[in-house]
Amino acid sequence: MHILVTNDDGVLAPGLLALAREMRNFGKVSVLAPDRNWSASGHVRTLDRPLRVKEVTLEDGSRAFASDGAPSDCVALAECGFLGEKLDLVVSGINPMANVGHDVTYSGTVTAAMEAAIGGLPAIAFSLDSPDGQVNGAAWASAAHFASRVVQTFLRYGISRDTLLNVNIPCLPEKEIKGMRITRQGLRVYHDKLDRRRDPRGRAYYWIIGDVPTGIPELGTDIGALANGYVSVTPLHLDLTAYQSMPDLANWEWTEEEKALIAQPASIFITG
Amino acid sequence: MHILVTNDDGVLAPGLLALAREMRNFGKVSVLAPDRNWSASGHVRTLDRPLRVKEVTLEDGSRAFASDGAPSDCVALAECGFLGEKLDLVVSGINPMANVGHDVTYSGTVTAAMEAAIGGLPAIAFSLDSPDGQVNGAAWASAAHFASRVVQTFLRYGISRDTLLNVNIPCLPEKEIKGMRITRQGLRVYHDKLDRRRDPRGRAYYWIIGDVPTGIPELGTDIGALANGYVSVTPLHLDLTAYQSMPDLANWEWTEEEKALIAQPASIFITG
Repeated sequence: MHILVTNDDGVLAPGLLALAREMRNFGKVSVLAPDRNWSASGHVRTLDRPLRVKEVTLEDGSRAFASDGAPSDCVALAECGFLGEKLDLVVSGINPMANVGHDVTYSGTVTAAMEAAIGGLPAIAFSLDSPDGQVNGAAWASAAHFASRVVQTFLRYGISRDTLLNVNIPCLPEKEIKGMRITRQGLRVYHDKLDRRRDPRGRAYYWIIGDVPTGIPELGTDIGALANGYVSVTPLHLDLTAYQSMPDLANWEWTEEEKALIAQPASIFITG
Repeated sequence: MHILVTNDDGVLAPGLLALAREMRNFGKVSVLAPDRNWSASGHVRTLDRPLRVKEVTLEDGSRAFASDGAPSDCVALAECGFLGEKLDLVVSGINPMANVGHDVTYSGTVTAAMEAAIGGLPAIAFSLDSPDGQVNGAAWASAAHFASRVVQTFLRYGISRDTLLNVNIPCLPEKEIKGMRITRQGLRVYHDKLDRRRDPRGRAYYWIIGDVPTGIPELGTDIGALANGYVSVTPLHLDLTAYQSMPDLANWEWTEEEKALIAQPASIFITG
């Protein structure tokens, strides 16, 4: 069992070390992660420049690789053979702040796992629900413990192709976490505002910034689970098709010519 | 009707102008797009630096805004009030190469539309299926015409919240395009390889590069439609939950304690 550990906070982040240590219980661990923070960087493939990779030493003395690419570039490097060995599992994290609701397409933590799933590898993203990114040792230990429990069960059962897990863990000591819930993606509420400023030369510049995103803590969602003290385990699919909208679209009054040509294929509801 | 036109190729790209011109038939058009190419940049929110915006003149003499942010940053700027006017529709493109299958989370063209949908705005991404990014005037005109037909019908019917359209158009003269198909996301096949090189100082660097992605031209998919000479219209949803995997996950043999705590909420199959 060869496990790749990556993240979007940079290779020296404490969450990566907590996860890498835990993963050593399951097999050989390779660490290949960005050399800097890539939060909210999205699902990147660096095309316009080559990538550099250097060896670094983590706080516990273990060796790791740091790349100047994005989290998804790190996964692509490993999938293309950089480590010289096939991968069996890719885990990403542990991010100090939650990746729930609409965060998933922005999140470097989650898109690293997406990159692995696109490559046909089992993949899990782990995040802690710290309100401000400040996480103490007890919370890292608690999160690592839950990551271990999820991986253990995941390895036993596996998951369908094109599916990955997005796991979010309350930022609480282990004994205060109530358990785990299988959840769906909830609804994030962003509070972005435009902050217009002038630089010392009088030219305008803009920050898009606001309060930390909140969300609708609905029962059955990742946001609801965290709000109630549970770990959320959300399976995500690479097929984003809005199947429920397809019959409506097919019934739109396109021109007669178009209507004749818009087939309603028999396979319309079969997922990829 | 106030329409934002953006793209991921940069504000001066011919595909943006073709789309912006066509959109003027539907209302007031504002252009706010990146000042450079952001292909495969993913769903970015620039957090660590402020954004600059400058006014530029497009080839037809019209005014536009160019930002040093990503496509999704451009949409966020407009949503946060940069243009001083509310938006009714966001269109992104026309990208010279297709965005189908798993491309959708990488694509700046599609993630710009995603950003709009997250903000509650109707949004459509348009791409042309050129094999090499080379598009002649006839193909741009053909693509713009189909974009117009989609927008016209889209405005009449609207679409559910959290859903966007991803439209891909064959790179053919209009009379050779057979029509439109409502499609699901197909399966892309990537051909990435690691190209290890040494710089003049002897240090290693890496390109991840391979042939242009292909795909499985299955009936009912975006890839299948393009392969058969049809425009593909794929509705995409912001909820990536793999609903079909949820019952399996809930039935995994978690420890007894965990099993007791993993609720199977009544709302498990209700989409967001």
